[in-house]
Amino acid sequence: MGKQQTPKVKIIPLGGLYEIGKNITVIEYKNDIIVVDCGIIFPEDEMLGIDVVIPDITYLERNKDKIRAIVLTHGHEDHIGALPYVLQKVSTPVYGTKLTLGLVENKLNEKGIKNANLNIVKAGQKTKLGSMVVEYIRVNHSIPDAVALAIHTPEGAIVHTGDFKIDYTPINGKMMDLNRFADLGSRGVLALLADSTNVERTGSTMSEKTVGNTFNDIFMDAEGRIIVATFASNVHRIQQIVNAAVMFDRKIVVSGRSMINVVKVSTELGYLDIPEGTIIDINDMNKYPDNKITIITTGSQGEPMAALSRLAFSDHRKMELIPGDLVIISATPIPGNEKTVARVINQLFKKGANVIYEALADVHVSGHACKEELKLIHSLIKPKYFIPVHGEYRHLKQHAQLAEDLGLDRDNIFILENGSVLEVCRSDAKLNGNVPSGHILVDGLGVGDVGNIVLRDRKHLSEDGLIVVVVTIKKEDGKVVSGPDLVSRGFVYVRESEDLMVEAKNVVRNVLLDCEKNQITDWSTLKSRVRDSLRNYLYQKIKRNPMILPIIMEI
Amino acid sequence: MGKQQTPKVKIIPLGGLYEIGKNITVIEYKNDIIVVDCGIIFPEDEMLGIDVVIPDITYLERNKDKIRAIVLTHGHEDHIGALPYVLQKVSTPVYGTKLTLGLVENKLNEKGIKNANLNIVKAGQKTKLGSMVVEYIRVNHSIPDAVALAIHTPEGAIVHTGDFKIDYTPINGKMMDLNRFADLGSRGVLALLADSTNVERTGSTMSEKTVGNTFNDIFMDAEGRIIVATFASNVHRIQQIVNAAVMFDRKIVVSGRSMINVVKVSTELGYLDIPEGTIIDINDMNKYPDNKITIITTGSQGEPMAALSRLAFSDHRKMELIPGDLVIISATPIPGNEKTVARVINQLFKKGANVIYEALADVHVSGHACKEELKLIHSLIKPKYFIPVHGEYRHLKQHAQLAEDLGLDRDNIFILENGSVLEVCRSDAKLNGNVPSGHILVDGLGVGDVGNIVLRDRKHLSEDGLIVVVVTIKKEDGKVVSGPDLVSRGFVYVRESEDLMVEAKNVVRNVLLDCEKNQITDWSTLKSRVRDSLRNYLYQKIKRNPMILPIIMEI
Repeated sequence: MGKQQTPKVKIIPLGGLYEIGKNITVIEYKNDIIVVDCGIIFPEDEMLGIDVVIPDITYLERNKDKIRAIVLTHGHEDHIGALPYVLQKVSTPVYGTKLTLGLVENKLNEKGIKNANLNIVKAGQKTKLGSMVVEYIRVNHSIPDAVALAIHTPEGAIVHTGDFKIDYTPINGKMMDLNRFADLGSRGVLALLADSTNVERTGSTMSEKTVGNTFNDIFMDAEGRIIVATFASNVHRIQQIVNAAVMFDRKIVVSGRSMINVVKVSTELGYLDIPEGTIIDINDMNKYPDNKITIITTGSQGEPMAALSRLAFSDHRKMELIPGDLVIISATPIPGNEKTVARVINQLFKKGANVIYEALADVHVSGHACKEELKLIHSLIKPKYFIPVHGEYRHLKQHAQLAEDLGLDRDNIFILENGSVLEVCRSDAKLNGNVPSGHILVDGLGVGDVGNIVLRDRKHLSEDGLIVVVVTIKKEDGKVVSGPDLVSRGFVYVRESEDLMVEAKNVVRNVLLDCEKNQITDWSTLKSRVRDSLRNYLYQKIKRNPMILPIIMEI
Repeated sequence: MGKQQTPKVKIIPLGGLYEIGKNITVIEYKNDIIVVDCGIIFPEDEMLGIDVVIPDITYLERNKDKIRAIVLTHGHEDHIGALPYVLQKVSTPVYGTKLTLGLVENKLNEKGIKNANLNIVKAGQKTKLGSMVVEYIRVNHSIPDAVALAIHTPEGAIVHTGDFKIDYTPINGKMMDLNRFADLGSRGVLALLADSTNVERTGSTMSEKTVGNTFNDIFMDAEGRIIVATFASNVHRIQQIVNAAVMFDRKIVVSGRSMINVVKVSTELGYLDIPEGTIIDINDMNKYPDNKITIITTGSQGEPMAALSRLAFSDHRKMELIPGDLVIISATPIPGNEKTVARVINQLFKKGANVIYEALADVHVSGHACKEELKLIHSLIKPKYFIPVHGEYRHLKQHAQLAEDLGLDRDNIFILENGSVLEVCRSDAKLNGNVPSGHILVDGLGVGDVGNIVLRDRKHLSEDGLIVVVVTIKKEDGKVVSGPDLVSRGFVYVRESEDLMVEAKNVVRNVLLDCEKNQITDWSTLKSRVRDSLRNYLYQKIKRNPMILPIIMEI
C-alpha cells in the first residue's frame, strides 16, 4: 500500500457479540454511518430489579452527523427494542419492511414518541444511503418479513444475514432468496456477518410447517377447548393455529395484550389471514361448546403476569381453566426461563388440563439456522472476510471454526467484541482500536442511573437483608441521647429471634459506651466500629452477614 | 369389611413429591415407622439468600418412639443431605450400603455430629425393623452402591425403587438385580413407589459405558492437558476418566474439595480402582508435559466457587488455564443452572481452551430410567397399587398415565402430595388425611427462622433497594429537632441523582411540617404519611418503588 491510506469500511458491533440479544452494528464509510438493528437484551439474573438492557450508543451520539439511517432486519425485540431510547438521542430515518415498522410504530406510540421518520421497504429493493447502498434480501425466520442486508460499499459488498433459517416450505410460500445470495457470492462479497445462535446444532432446522402438521394431529383428537401459547411475534405460528382451528371448525379467542396487538397489526397489514367470524370476543366464549373453542395466548415463557400463568394460577379476569382443557405450549424456554415454564406446566396439570410441550411433541421449531444451513450460506456467499455475530463467545468461536473448516483462511476470520473497530478494504482487514460500548440498565424511567454499586447493594440486601442502627447524639459532647435503635428487614423473623436482636442491641450499646469512654466522637470511626462489632457478632452467632447501616443523628 | 378395622400400612411422603429433591418417605405399620431417605433440595430462585431446604419432620418428632430406622437408598444429597438436621431431632439407627454411609459419615463429621448409629448393609441382605423387614436390592444409578427397597409388611411387600436406571453394561459389572424384582413381582407386590424423573423421555437411558467410549476417543486425539469436570459423587464416571487417563499414560490431578473427598472415600472403600502412582499432587503437575496430565475437577454446574469456575476466571490458587487445554464438561446443567454453566463455557473458550460439552458430544448420560425402563419395572413388579414419586407434578401425572397404559386400574394409582397419608392393605387403599409437611429454610446456622415475610422483604430490597428516613423529635411537643435524613441503598447511584434525593427530602420535610401544623404526633400515622408521600413522589418521578423505612427517634 502507498502512503495515502485507502479509505476503509469500518465494521463496529456495538452489541450482539458475547451475548444473544442487543443487536446493533455500525457500518461506516468516510462520512457515512449505517446502523444495522437496534435491540435490547433482557437482564441477567444478577441485574436485580432491572427491566431491560440497552446498548451504549456513545459512539453514535458522538457521530450524529454521519448517521444516514437505522436499517432493521426484522421486528424482534432484540433487533428493534432499543429504538425508543436511541431515537431520543439520535434523530435519523429508520428503514424496515412493513411488518417490522408496524411493530416499531406500535412500540414508539407506547413510549409517546412521535414524528419518527419510518420508511417501508420491500425485499429486493435497494436504498441509497450516502456513499452506500443497502439491499434487502428475503430470509426465513420466526417472524414474517425478515430480511438480510447486502450493504454495497465502494470497497465491496458486506452481507449481514440478520436472524435467519432456511425454510424450503414456509407458511407464506416466500422462501429465503437463496438465488440472490448465490448471485452476490458469484460477484464477490467483501465480508459476511452471520447469525451464530444455532451453530452448536447439527443438521438443519425443521420447517415451520412440521409444527402445523402436529397441530392438525392434535386438533383432530381434541375433545375440549384447545389453548395454544406461543410468542406473539411468531405470526406464521399463529397462522397455523388459525388454520387448524378453521379446519376443525373452532372459533378463536385471542388473549394477552401483546398477542391481541400483533394479531391486529398483522391482520391489518396482510400478514395474517383469518376468515371473517373466526375470532370471537372473549366474553362470547360461553356461547360455544368447548370443542368449538381455540384460545391463542401469550405466556409461553411462563411469565408470571402473562395470560397463561394467570389461567394456570386462577388469576385471569375473564377465563378459567376447566378440566379437559388441552394446553399446547408452542415454544422452547429461553435459557433462564426453564423453571418458570416448568412451574406453569405443573400448575396446568394440577388444574386438570392436559399439557403438550416440546418434551412431548413437535410443537415448536427454532427460527435460526443450524450447522448445515450455515454451511450452505457460507458456501454460496464465499466471503473474503467473515465475522460471526449474534452469539455468546462459544457460538462465535464455533462459527469461526465452521468457516475455517469450509476453507476460509483463519486470518480472514474475525471474532470481534462489542466496540471493536474492524477496518476492511479490498486488500486488507484489520482491527483498529475500540469505541465505547457496553450495557445501559433501564429500571423504571431511569436509564443508566443503576450501576455496579447499586446492583452490588441489591445483591447483598437480597441475600442477607439489612439492619439499620440509629443513634442520636449531642453535638457538644457526643453523648448518646437516644438509641441505639435497631431495625431489620429481610434478616430474621424478628418475633422468633428476639433474643438475638436484644443481644445485638447490647453489642452496639457496648461499642458506643466504649467509644464514649475513649472519647471517640469521629462519626466515621464510630460507624465503622458499630458495623464491625455487629457484623462479627452476627456472623459468629448465625453465620449471616446482613448489610449494616449505622445512622447518627445529631442534635 | 367388618367393624374391626384391619391394621393398615401407611405410606406418607414427607418430601419428594411435586419437586425433584428432598426425598423422604414414611412407611408405618402399627407401632413401627421406617423412614426411607432423608434428603435436601436446593432453594428456588425466589428463596433469596437461602442455603438449603430441608423437609418439615414434625410428624417424625411427634412419633419419635415409633421410628425403627432411617433406611437410605443411595448417597446423593437429595437422599441423605438432611440427615445432619434430622438426626439432631430424632435419634434412630441409619441403614445404608458401604459407600452411602461413607458419604454420610463424612457429612456428619463436617457438622460435628458424633455417635450416629450407622449400619452398613449389602444388596441382597434383609434387616428386621419391628414388624417389618427391609430388603435391599441392587439398582444402577449415577452413584455406585445404590439400592431399591422391598419393605415386607404383614400386609404385603412395598417396593421403593429409589433413584435408578437399568444399565446392562455397568462399569463395575454389577447390574441391577432384575431377577429379584421379577421374583417379587411373581409373588405379589402390594405397592410400588417408583422414580419419575425421566418419565418424559422416550426410549432407554444410555449405558454409562458409552461415556467411557467417548472419553477414549477424546483422549486419543488430545495433545495438551485434559480437564474433566463432573459430579463428585459420580464414581463410575470418575473411574472411566481414570481408565482413559491410564490407557493414554496420563497422570491425574484431583481438584475441588468434594472431588478430593469422594475420590479418597471411594478409593478407601474399594469403589474406585486407581493404579498406584497415577494420582499426583497438584504442585507436581509442572514436572510432567501437558499431554501427560489429566485434571479431574468439580464445577460442572458452573458453581462460581468451584474449581472449574476458578480456573476459567483465573481465580484458582494452584492452577492456570493454558491455551490448548481441553476441557470436558461431563454433566448436564441441572434446571436453573443453564446460564451459569454457559458462562463458564464461554469464559473457558475465551481463555483459549477447547471445550467439549453435552451439546457437542456424548460426554454425559442420565442416572434415571426413561419410559421403556419404567415400563419394564412396572411389568416385572405388577404392583396392586402404584404411587409415582421423585418428580414434579407433571412427572407424577405422566408416570401415572404410563402405569394406566400398562393396564393398572386408575383407581389403584395414587398421585400423593407431601404429607398425604395413604393407607393400604391387601384388599384396599385409600387416602386418609394429611400430616404436617413442607419446607424448612436453612440460612447460615439458622434453621427455619427465615419465612415468607423475610423472603418478601429480601425480594423487595433486591428489586428496588431501600430508603431509610430518620427523624429525631422532642418527646414533649413532637417537634422535629434533627432530620429528616435520607439514606438509600440499592436505589439509585446517589451522586448522579442528587436532585432527586434533595427533592425527596423536601417531600418528607413538607409532610413533617404538615403533621406538626395539624398536631399529628401519633408515630404510626406519621410514619405511614411519610411512607406514602415519598412512595408516590418516587413512583411518579422514576417509576420505582423502593422499600421505605421511616425511623423516629425521640429525645
